[in-house]
Amino acid sequence: MYLDNSATTQVSEEVFKEMEPFFTQEFGNPSTLYGIGRESKKALNLARQRVADAINAKPEEIIFTSGGSESDNLAIKGIAFKLKNRGNHIITTNIEHPAVKNTLGFLESLDFKVTYLPVYENGIIKIEDLIEAITPETILITIMHGNNEIGTIQPIEEIGKIAREKGIKFHTDAVQTFGKVDIDVEKLNVDLLAISSHKINGPKGVGALYIKKGTRLTPLIHGGGQERGIRGGTENVPGIVGFGKACELAAAQLDEHYEKLSSIRDEIIEKVSATIPEAYLNGDTENRLPNLVNFRFKAIEGESLILLLDAKGYQASTGSACSSNTLEASPVLTALGLDPVDVHGSLRISLAPESDSFDVDDFVNVLAESVARLREMSPLWDQDLDYDGVMCKKHGDDCRMC
Amino acid sequence: MYLDNSATTQVSEEVFKEMEPFFTQEFGNPSTLYGIGRESKKALNLARQRVADAINAKPEEIIFTSGGSESDNLAIKGIAFKLKNRGNHIITTNIEHPAVKNTLGFLESLDFKVTYLPVYENGIIKIEDLIEAITPETILITIMHGNNEIGTIQPIEEIGKIAREKGIKFHTDAVQTFGKVDIDVEKLNVDLLAISSHKINGPKGVGALYIKKGTRLTPLIHGGGQERGIRGGTENVPGIVGFGKACELAAAQLDEHYEKLSSIRDEIIEKVSATIPEAYLNGDTENRLPNLVNFRFKAIEGESLILLLDAKGYQASTGSACSSNTLEASPVLTALGLDPVDVHGSLRISLAPESDSFDVDDFVNVLAESVARLREMSPLWDQDLDYDGVMCKKHGDDCRMC
Repeated sequence: MYLDNSATTQVSEEVFKEMEPFFTQEFGNPSTLYGIGRESKKALNLARQRVADAINAKPEEIIFTSGGSESDNLAIKGIAFKLKNRGNHIITTNIEHPAVKNTLGFLESLDFKVTYLPVYENGIIKIEDLIEAITPETILITIMHGNNEIGTIQPIEEIGKIAREKGIKFHTDAVQTFGKVDIDVEKLNVDLLAISSHKINGPKGVGALYIKKGTRLTPLIHGGGQERGIRGGTENVPGIVGFGKACELAAAQLDEHYEKLSSIRDEIIEKVSATIPEAYLNGDTENRLPNLVNFRFKAIEGESLILLLDAKGYQASTGSACSSNTLEASPVLTALGLDPVDVHGSLRISLAPESDSFDVDDFVNVLAESVARLREMSPLWDQDLDYDGVMCKKHGDDCRMC
Repeated sequence: MYLDNSATTQVSEEVFKEMEPFFTQEFGNPSTLYGIGRESKKALNLARQRVADAINAKPEEIIFTSGGSESDNLAIKGIAFKLKNRGNHIITTNIEHPAVKNTLGFLESLDFKVTYLPVYENGIIKIEDLIEAITPETILITIMHGNNEIGTIQPIEEIGKIAREKGIKFHTDAVQTFGKVDIDVEKLNVDLLAISSHKINGPKGVGALYIKKGTRLTPLIHGGGQERGIRGGTENVPGIVGFGKACELAAAQLDEHYEKLSSIRDEIIEKVSATIPEAYLNGDTENRLPNLVNFRFKAIEGESLILLLDAKGYQASTGSACSSNTLEASPVLTALGLDPVDVHGSLRISLAPESDSFDVDDFVNVLAESVARLREMSPLWDQDLDYDGVMCKKHGDDCRMC
């Protein structure tokens, strides 16, 4: 059972079928003038229309990229370089995806200034913090839509309204929310919005950036005149065709999938909380993705839990895939104000529409056994401890576990 | 008959078969810890080894990107941003691909200085011009290997030797030469070398940058720790797998394909020159790609020729696909010192290994008919004109066609 759909998803058969002819048959370069090139161009146009339709944009507002990370880089560096003579201040949060966070780190090395808004225990920023952070130098606000580790959804519409009032460009990384919750770029008041194909049963290596008409930005990949001069490089035609189909499918079944996934999600939350002692949900209880839950379990290592679950046939993760290979504590969980030890005991379960055969009871039983087994071996776990979170009766005030 | 393989190529059946399982079955994210993620990681490693082997590099010197344009951008901006405190001068040529040329234009807007070396009638730079252009501020030389429009090959080995002696980083765009001529990064004395998958019967949307061990550069796409922290974003696993296979196939048959293609190329050159009046080969006669010829025909429009040939079943181009949709005169042909009118009458024919069923006689007949037909309609063509290139006996000195 694959439970890591926030990391990547399986390409659906329908999507693959649509892409297939564009590898070995309809392989023309869309920039060329003859027959086979014109067919590729038509396929690109259809895909662009499908992506646009899925977020209530116009086709000319969609720029295809190699994925969500490129889209974020293009949006942020693109605005920063374009508007550098107008100001050098950017506002973000302290729980952004590395594609945003590290891009901003790079810009800081070039004398841009960045304000990192805190999130609170629920993983959500406060609007008053945002308002306070705005200066006359502020050229860009970049705040993610749904968080990739804990699934918390930020108040994008409200943030966008403030940005627009102040004449500041607003970008949101919607890689996790796209295809999961309704996205209407007009309602959300965004100027730029990044999405990715491989999170919605489309192929890897493709994404898009929505760029509101009239928003000018410096290219990230300079080159030929492709994508209206904003993104150079021969278009990945099969990938884009697959992405277009995946968008069409996701949009058509959005409400149905939302209902189904959020009901499974709530069942998981309820049963894990009821069955496993000292298990806590990370992130907000209300404003969250329908397909993602993130728990922390006292006194265990998330990585060991992943490996035990894998052996039992459940493939899940500790948090973001991007940092699975590092031992660094999750900056997202740290930003919630959690104790460093708790941060290492987290588990992310993320579902996809095809997860509906998922048996929650079976899973929770296996999870409970695995957590119990790891706790037996854990020097940090003692069933007699008082985990009331205030003071440890056994070890005294300086016990970090209690 | 498809004759535009410099624009893009057909994915070969063997390549497609190798990629196929990674869409709907082996779809794991290589950064994850469980079974399906580890399988993707293994596939990435194999592909990296195959790409490295094809250019005599080590696997850890290969960074996967979304294509040749991204690779060029990463190399050039990556060195420029990394070494900006050491110097701000870059040397290139005036016939680079837009992915290089426009990237340098962007850097000029950030106060970098760029010297554009001229090429001479044959399309090749002079080494003494390069030596003269070097200053203590020079941090990078970026000179393409084989030109995408005229097929001319630059003296990379010699340029690399000079760059190394002077301690200057050297990048080459080898998108057109890779898989066509032998590339050994050690012999070529390069620090960075850009290659692309879709030019060698691999899928679109994938490329790589060779980065010589010890060469440090700033990422272009900041993000997760993928590709040793140099290129963020979930890896395009199926694409990379296909690219790896395409490299393996190209490398195994390199000599055989070189012989076959250069023999067809020479036959085309000979027969076109013998059959069609006022037809001239663009670029060097010796140092050129085995699979590409570029002719100019007096008094016709290249675009009309493309459309006539398309109607007869031959798909070719006027020059680079990147500029097919613009009316701008080719900067490459202009750099050769050609008259602006001649620049518009060019035809590029580019072959692939699968072009061996190509009947040169049939093609040259169709081409000759098409050129003759266009000339009949052309106000610029008059068979009585004296095309000796010195003076027009009919229209006087100011006739631009004669």
